[in-house]
Parts: sequence; C-alpha cells; structure tokens
Amino acid sequence: MPLTSPLRGVVPPVCTPLDARGDIDTASLARLVEHLIDGGVHGLFALGSTSEVAYLTDAQRATVLETVVRAAAGRVPVLAGVIDTTTPRVLDHAARAAELGADGLVATAPFYTRTHPLEIARHFRRIRASVDLPLFAYDLPVSVHSKLSAALLRELAQDGTLAGVKDSSGDEGGLRRLIVELGGRHGRGTGPAPDFSILTGSELTVDAVLLAGVDGVVPGIGNVDPAAYVRLYEAARAGDWELAAKEQERLVELFGIVDVGPEEDMGRSSSALGSFKGALRLLGVIDNGDTAFPQIQLSEASVESIAVRLRAAGLAPVE
Amino acid sequence: MPLTSPLRGVVPPVCTPLDARGDIDTASLARLVEHLIDGGVHGLFALGSTSEVAYLTDAQRATVLETVVRAAAGRVPVLAGVIDTTTPRVLDHAARAAELGADGLVATAPFYTRTHPLEIARHFRRIRASVDLPLFAYDLPVSVHSKLSAALLRELAQDGTLAGVKDSSGDEGGLRRLIVELGGRHGRGTGPAPDFSILTGSELTVDAVLLAGVDGVVPGIGNVDPAAYVRLYEAARAGDWELAAKEQERLVELFGIVDVGPEEDMGRSSSALGSFKGALRLLGVIDNGDTAFPQIQLSEASVESIAVRLRAAGLAPVE
Amino acid sequence: MPLTSPLRGVVPPVCTPLDARGDIDTASLARLVEHLIDGGVHGLFALGSTSEVAYLTDAQRATVLETVVRAAAGRVPVLAGVIDTTTPRVLDHAARAAELGADGLVATAPFYTRTHPLEIARHFRRIRASVDLPLFAYDLPVSVHSKLSAALLRELAQDGTLAGVKDSSGDEGGLRRLIVELGGRHGRGTGPAPDFSILTGSELTVDAVLLAGVDGVVPGIGNVDPAAYVRLYEAARAGDWELAAKEQERLVELFGIVDVGPEEDMGRSSSALGSFKGALRLLGVIDNGDTAFPQIQLSEASVESIAVRLRAAGLAPVE
Amino acid sequence: MPLTSPLRGVVPPVCTPLDARGDIDTASLARLVEHLIDGGVHGLFALGSTSEVAYLTDAQRATVLETVVRAAAGRVPVLAGVIDTTTPRVLDHAARAAELGADGLVATAPFYTRTHPLEIARHFRRIRASVDLPLFAYDLPVSVHSKLSAALLRELAQDGTLAGVKDSSGDEGGLRRLIVELGGRHGRGTGPAPDFSILTGSELTVDAVLLAGVDGVVPGIGNVDPAAYVRLYEAARAGDWELAAKEQERLVELFGIVDVGPEEDMGRSSSALGSFKGALRLLGVIDNGDTAFPQIQLSEASVESIAVRLRAAGLAPVE
Repeated sequence: MPLTSPLRGVVPPVCTPLDARGDIDTASLARLVEHLIDGGVHGLFALGSTSEVAYLTDAQRATVLETVVRAAAGRVPVLAGVIDTTTPRVLDHAARAAELGADGLVATAPFYTRTHPLEIARHFRRIRASVDLPLFAYDLPVSVHSKLSAALLRELAQDGTLAGVKDSSGDEGGLRRLIVELGGRHGRGTGPAPDFSILTGSELTVDAVLLAGVDGVVPGIGNVDPAAYVRLYEAARAGDWELAAKEQERLVELFGIVDVGPEEDMGRSSSALGSFKGALRLLGVIDNGDTAFPQIQLSEASVESIAVRLRAAGLAPVE
Repeated sequence: MPLTSPLRGVVPPVCTPLDARGDIDTASLARLVEHLIDGGVHGLFALGSTSEVAYLTDAQRATVLETVVRAAAGRVPVLAGVIDTTTPRVLDHAARAAELGADGLVATAPFYTRTHPLEIARHFRRIRASVDLPLFAYDLPVSVHSKLSAALLRELAQDGTLAGVKDSSGDEGGLRRLIVELGGRHGRGTGPAPDFSILTGSELTVDAVLLAGVDGVVPGIGNVDPAAYVRLYEAARAGDWELAAKEQERLVELFGIVDVGPEEDMGRSSSALGSFKGALRLLGVIDNGDTAFPQIQLSEASVESIAVRLRAAGLAPVE
Repeated sequence: MPLTSPLRGVVPPVCTPLDARGDIDTASLARLVEHLIDGGVHGLFALGSTSEVAYLTDAQRATVLETVVRAAAGRVPVLAGVIDTTTPRVLDHAARAAELGADGLVATAPFYTRTHPLEIARHFRRIRASVDLPLFAYDLPVSVHSKLSAALLRELAQDGTLAGVKDSSGDEGGLRRLIVELGGRHGRGTGPAPDFSILTGSELTVDAVLLAGVDGVVPGIGNVDPAAYVRLYEAARAGDWELAAKEQERLVELFGIVDVGPEEDMGRSSSALGSFKGALRLLGVIDNGDTAFPQIQLSEASVESIAVRLRAAGLAPVE
Repeated sequence: MPLTSPLRGVVPPVCTPLDARGDIDTASLARLVEHLIDGGVHGLFALGSTSEVAYLTDAQRATVLETVVRAAAGRVPVLAGVIDTTTPRVLDHAARAAELGADGLVATAPFYTRTHPLEIARHFRRIRASVDLPLFAYDLPVSVHSKLSAALLRELAQDGTLAGVKDSSGDEGGLRRLIVELGGRHGRGTGPAPDFSILTGSELTVDAVLLAGVDGVVPGIGNVDPAAYVRLYEAARAGDWELAAKEQERLVELFGIVDVGPEEDMGRSSSALGSFKGALRLLGVIDNGDTAFPQIQLSEASVESIAVRLRAAGLAPVE
C-alpha cells in the first residue's frame, strides 16, 4: 500500500520473532503483524533497530520483509530499514527491499566510519536516486554516533530527497525547532516541505511530541500494546490532550518492563528487546521470546515480573 | 520570600549584566530583575549557568546575589546557584548564599572529578545537612558530564534531601518516567514525595513538558520575554494546550537569536549567552551586552540580526 | 601461509584501490601487494578499516580477499577483516574468508547495537568455534564505540579464543598493563598465554610500543612506505632504539600527508584515506587515488602537497 | 627555586594528606615533600588533580601551597595548579599562588562552560599576562572535556605564552606529532620553541614517551616510589632503554594498587587516589590515608591488598 504523504499515525517497529535455533519464526511474525493491524496501527516499520536488524543476516532480512509484506497484505504501508555501514552496502539492501515490496525505505547516516555532513548528504541523495521509493532518514545517534542537523534535514526535505525523518535522537528541543522552521504545527502543509513527515521514535513522550506537531510515532513498546498508542494518537488528533496524557502515563508504567533484566548481567538494550519479546510471548502473540545471538536472555524471574506488569496494565497473559 | 512547596511556575535564570570593564553592573541587574517581575515570573534563579556563574569570581557572585535579593525585595523567591567542583567548595558558596538571603540553593553533581553515584548522593546530603535551605539538584550533563539517575533523584526526593530538581539533561523520556514514578501528573501531591518540585531547563518544549506534568520552567530566553513564558504557563494551567503550543512556537522562533554568532569564530554557548544579553541591551533593559572573559563577543552585524528577530517577535528595540 | 604463533612484525592494512567507477581495481591491488612484500612486510591485513571495508559490498570484499591471497601467493600470511554489526553477520563473512584462503580472521566487538561485555565474550567465542582459523580481536573504539577491557582480552587469550589483538584504541597505558599481565616484555613466551600476539594500529609511536613489548604493528601509512616500518622494526629487534626512534620521526613527518584535506569540506577520515591512496598513485603503485562513495575526494591542490611531502621524505613521485 | 628552562625530569603531583576531620595535615605533607626530594625528584607539582585540588577550599589550597613551598625550601622548583572553571576565577588563584612562592603555574582550559579554541587561547594569554610566572597548559580531557590541539599548543609555545604542557590526554600519537613539529627528539633546543617543556602525566609508558622525546614526567604513583621514576628517567637519559623498560614494568605492576577498590562501590578515581594515599600511610610517610569528601574510602581489606603489592614491589610497609 503506497504511503500517504506525509505519513501519519502509529507505525510500530515490528519485532522479529525467532525460534529456538535463532531462525526467523515466520508464523509468529505473521501473527504479530495481525496483532498490530488489529490494534489499528497506520503502518509498519520492519527491519529497524527494535527488529534486531543488526543481528539478522541478509537472508534473514529478506525472510522478515517478505513475511511482513505478505501479512500486511496491503492493509497498511510497510517501511523497510536498510541499515548498513555506508552507501554501497545500503544500496544493496535498498534494491532488495524494493523487490520484496517495501512501500518506503528508512536509512541511517553511515556508521563505523567517520563521515562529514557533506558526505552524509551525498549518502541520502544517492540512495534516493537509486531506488524509487520514499526515503526516510533515521536519526539515531545512540547507534550511529552522529546527529543529523536540522539544517541538513531541512535541505534534504526541501529538495525532495527525504519523505520524512524518524527522529530517535531524544533531542526534543531540536525537533521542535525543525517543526517550526518547516512551518509550525498548523502551517506545515503550506511550509517549505509540505509533505515531509516527522516521526518520533520516543515511546514515553508521545503526547508531548504530538502537541509539538509531529506527524507520527514509532514506539517499540507499541508491539505489546498497539491499541493504546492508537488511542493516544486519536485523542491527540481530537485535541483531547488530557486523555492523551492519561494514555501516555499508562504506557510509561507499562514501559517499566524494560528494567526487569539485571544491569550487571546483560546490556540495557538486550533487556529492553527481551522484555518486548517476553511480553509478546506471554500475551500469546509469538511462540518464543528469545533475542538474537549474542544477546543474553532474560531469566525466568525477569519474565515473571513482566507478567506482573502486564496484568497491572490490564493486559492478560495467556498462561 | 520563602519558597512555595513545591515550587511552581516560571523561574528564569537571571542574566548577569557586566560593564565594559567586566565588573557587575548592579544598576542594570536591578532593572533586569524588575523587568522579570513585571513580566509576572514566579521566582528568580541567580548564579546559574545562564548567569555565567562559572565566569564570576567569589566576590562577583556575592555582588550578584546581594543585588538580586535586594531588587526582588521579597516579591518572589530567589534561588541561588552554588556551583563548584565538589562538596567542600560548594559548602563555602552555600553558607555565603544563605547569609546573603537566598531562599533556596541549586547544586550540580561534582564535576572535573569523576564521581560515583554513591558519592553524588553523599554530596547532596552533606549540602542539605549544612545549610538549612531547600535544595534543588541541577541535572546538567552538558556541563558536569554525568547524569543524575531517576533512582537517585527518587531516593533523595523521598528522604527529604531535595526540594526539587532542575532538569537540563534534555532527556525528556527519563523525566517522564520520573514524573510517573512520583505519582504521575495528577497524583504527585499524594505520591511518595508530595512536595518535590520538577523544573525543566528547556525553553523550546515548555508546553510539552507542562503537559507531561512538570511544575515549572527555567527558560534562559525568559530573560528577554518573561511575559510570554508566563502566558504559556497560565495557558497550560488552564488546560488550553492549543494556546500554550502557539505561545511556545512564537518563543521557538524568537530563540533563533542564539544562532546569530558565526560558529567558526565563537562557541555556541558564547553565542547564546551573547544573544540574550544583546537582546536585553536592545530592549533597553541593560546597558551593555558583553559576556564575560574569555568569551568572544557578537559582532555588530550579529546584534543587527537580533534586532530584526526581536521586531519579528513584536518586541521593539529602543534604538 | 599459516600464521607464525605469535604473529610478529609489520602487517600493513592493505588499501583497496578502486577504479573510476568505484569497482575494485584488482591489477592495482596486486601491484600494491607486491609493493608491500618487496618492502619486507611480515604479513598483510586485508579488509580492515584502512581497506575501506565498511564501504565495500559483500561481492567487493570477496574480490579483494581473493586478489590479495592470490597476489601474496603464500609468501606472507593474510589476515582478513570480518567486519559487521553482530555475530550472525560476522559468521557469514568468516565462512567466506576461510573459503577464499585467509590465514587468520580479525573481528571487532559488535557495533550499532549496545552490547554488554559478557555478550562480547560470547561473540568472539562463537566466531572462533565456527571457523577454524586464528582469530584476532580488533579493538577500535573510534568505530565501534566500546573498548575491550584488559580483563576480557586476558580471559579470551588464556582460554585460546583469541590468537591476538590488534589494538587501535590509542590507550597505550592500558596496553602496557596488558603486556605486563601477560608476562612482560621478556616473559610473555612463558606467561599465561604464550602465543598471544599483541599488535598495535598506531603508526606514530611504533618505536615506543615496541619498546613496551608489542609483537607487531599494523600501520596504515605502511602502505606508502613499508620498507621504513620494516627498518624501524628491525632496529627495535636489534635493540637499536636510537635508530628506531629516528625512523619513527621520519615517518611521523611523512604522516603529515593526512592533513592536506581541508577539514571544513571533508571528514578527517576521508582525508587520511585519500592521502594514502593519493600517495600510492603518485608513487605509481596504483592507478587511481579515489576513495569509496560517499567520501569526498582530495582536491588537486591537496594531491600536490602530498607530492611535496613525499619528496621531502625521499620518496620520488613517478610523475 | 626558579624553573630550569625547559623544565626536565621527574615532577610528581604531590598528594594532599588530610587528617581525620578532613583538614590539611601539614606535618604529613611536609614529610611527603621530604620523601619525594629524598627520592631525587626534579620538581614538585602541588594542587594538581592527584592533589585532589578540586576538593580543596581556597583556604586549604593556600595551606597546601605554603606548606609545600616551605618544605621544598628552594631545593626543587614548585609548580602550582590554578584549577578553576574560567579565566576570572583562575586569575584569583594565580595571584595567590605567586604570593605564596610558586615557581610556575599550571592551568587547564576552561571547564563546566563550553569554550571555543579561540577563547581557550585568550584564556591562556590572559593568565600569562596577569602573573609573571612560567605557565604550563594542563591538557586533561578526562576532567575538562576538551582537548588542546597541537596547533593551539604550537602557537602558544612559539609566542611565549606557554613554558610547557603537561599532557594527560593519553593521546601519545598526537604528542609525538607535536614533538616532531617542534624539532624532534634531538632538534628541539634549536626548534621553533627551544625552551618549551613537554611533560607527560602518564605513569605507565614513561620509558616509551621519553624515547619519543618528552622532557619530563608527572607520575601520580611517583608519590609512592619516587626513586624508581628517577632511576627510570636516568636510565633513559643514559640511553639504557632496556633498563628503563625494566623499571617501567616494575612500576606498572606496582600501579595495580589502583584496582583494589571494588568498582561497584566507589569511583575508579577515588580508588586510585585512595590507593596512593593508603600506600603512603602504610609506608609511614603520612598519618592518614583518607581522601577528601565526598569520596568513599577504601575498605580495610583493600588496604591489606595494597600492603601485599607494596611488599611484592620491595617496598616494606612500616607496620
């Protein structure tokens, strides 16, 4: 399904269920897509960081994208992450994603290398020129260790290189400045880049960034409770900010599941990804909560505390 | 004037006007205090980063605090920054601030040194035990290069060490989690630390963080247009989030004055401080817009562009 | 040619010549290998950072390794970088490198992801268990944004996971502690990991780290003047530290070619890689000095200053 | 005693003994100075980071400097750290240090603030112009979070602002480039800044940096075993690099005392400072091993392991 322009709404980054051998569990992945579409989401983002894209081989990435596109069946658009170190490698992923039916591409700045802003601009322009799909910049300093400047985004928005940005930088002041420069909350459609879509990767301040004027949200924990993010989004669209804030507070509490893994024994990232997948298993959406190698798995005690928190949020584990 | 508990509202960090020799211009400082109180602010924060506290000798710090306390004349409470590398040095500043009539103290974690979280807790407890004034933690990783964790803040809130936090970390997701842990937007008064005040140092997302549930804001550019932040705050208090967002957008545009200094010739920090003081001079509030040594001054062309932006914001330069 | 154990000597990271279309120039690459072996080097490191591995597609990586192995023709061992974000992707590269005839593998810690030290240990152990080739850890915080601790390296050295480390962390104090823990300069052969090889990626302090007790060096600018690094190494082996220091000083001066690119227009990394390749072109070793997309190329003026510096170092450009 | 020009040799950063109440223990400090001069050191650096300068009030700093100057009694020159956030505050310390008899000053770049390189140059020039004492730049990114560039140091060396640099950046490649730019190991006396002194803060690679051409060393653990660093320095001066490396290896082993503090309960910095002071107490040089508030103290078990390591290094604890 072609993207709306600009893309708006709730677009969760789809988790990648694995079986006990570490292979893609396509049946679980299809059920997860169904769970998300049932929740009312407006799009799907496959092969992002929350999808553990950095842990998937090229063959696995293809399986994931194929499965998500088939399961979505044109009901919502599918964005595909094309995550790799530099342009030549990203172009390979982009060509493959287009073949497999992605409706849009999401690329970061180069990483591992040290790259000048002028080189980053060349990177995005080349990707856009090579594959005829809407292109989103993924601003993720925690992974790529550089920040896309507002000046660069504005330039690439205005010249049509980018269809939007997924901002996971956490720099909400900078994001607000970008929104205002592009016309502000109400003037963006008539601003210098009327179709440019601003999405946030935050899951904890969605009410606030919607008030600030973003178009959509890409919440990792939206895998677990997509309907709640849709309610939050709809409340904001209707101007009912008190209700939006109330939904957000409930989701902030649910987000506490990311802390169940003991910090001394596993990374915070493994703990967060493990808690999303653990919750999806407890809810019966996927069969196995394992994260990809070499990540360390949550203990049974940690999964138990996820179950407690799910119940507290009114989400009933199936077991 | 004693602090309300919790402290709420608009509490600008007061700029420190200097004369051409680099001495404190007390007459201008008193006029600035008047300008802020006229604007309706709910408190004043002297000797913070925006006050260039790190550039002021101990004698100058005393002059500043004395001047602000006298000019405020009990109409609003005055918080005093007690900024230094470690506890023994901070205690000297704290004792002096108490003598000079501060209504509350604001301290960062130790800096220059590398300090363990358990040591940071000892630091705040010792300050609180030594001087009988409400103590605010100033979370400012950009200057002190460590972040106060939510766990630490919660512990020091609950045991009464801290009266509040001024969050300038930019981590709005973490701030939202802290708010929810302390009872959420509507339950904080009955939560585990009912009088704990959460202030934000952001000036660009004030509507958003008020929606999230913070108590007050400490906006640097509030020196230039305090009345606008007060209008924003009152709109939020009244639940008129559309109006709050509109006021915020206007202030984001005004904030563009921080970019007038050319990056290759001066630091971003010098440029921002210089633009606030330049605007105050253009508005006739202070006599001289110079920042403290060794900062490089804005060029006349830069000051010209500040004037243009002030006019665009409906603020008329006096010249 | 199988690796000596431990690997010792000068092992330059082989640059990857590209033609004007950005494809691998295998003829130039074979000539470069000949140039290095003529210079007396003790091994070759293909597909490292200096080889622009992060810019090469999988097909190009295979072409490079095939070419280097064939050109080396068993005269010196060939190490192959297997650089990718996480274990599953690295395993694909490792299997391919083994097929293509690599004599050893070089892998970094995971990147893009945030990975716990226990997970990093699992990562190296899985690679070692999957492909039966000596494995070197590549400690490169500037690219992967984590540092391999001495404790981790010691553990993986003692249990036989690692055949060595290529230290490009710049932490020479930490490196010295590791050397001493493994038995010191003269006791390493009888220490807890007698065959463990410690290589440094530094090119500017080779005399100093050889005095400290490292086994070998992997100097990027060794592409340009391999014979000088071999002379330096031999002087150190012979205990002639004054001569070693003199050779090092000459190479430090030559290294000034990395500064010819203007910082405001291109990254430091692009400038350094471009200067190595530019020098190789001027010396007639390779046909084309271009770096991979999206890197910006050195200007003709910059290449001119490389020529001046080559002549100053007694290296005569062919043109 | 006036500084030699350039300053050369072993110049330890003098620890600051405290009594149980946290006050300066001047008797212990005088004994420590005697211990260092007995060890043959060539100068003393008071009020540096290892002296816990950031934890000392202004009154305590004066007591320390007075004590060290009196105890040194002109036998070796005394450098004084003038460590504070920005120029105006540093000038106060510098004036006081001159009054108290310091023979040279050591200043960092501004910290807490964000400061442009042009402003850092102004900072050093103003200090030099204000107090007529040789001025050393203290390059300490771990504390001040900016690095002094080689270009800046060269400029300030050549124009006479700086008498030298104490490099604690850990960037030994950059240091080597600076040495070569200033004339190299043997040409520095006739180079562009013939009297400029390059000192290193490293204690683990002293042989290596002396081979590279530095003039002197400022080793923290030199408090514990000054004679060993003097032997190392003399061996290097005599060109006996094997002996220098052997002395260095012994000191690297001794340096293991910094690891006795458990990382989860105290900072690495507190642990290192505590181990130096603990060793000095065990050796009978000072009465009390406490570090300044808010640092956490080493446990008795940790002090026990220091004693074991001292004995292993042939240093006999008095108890």
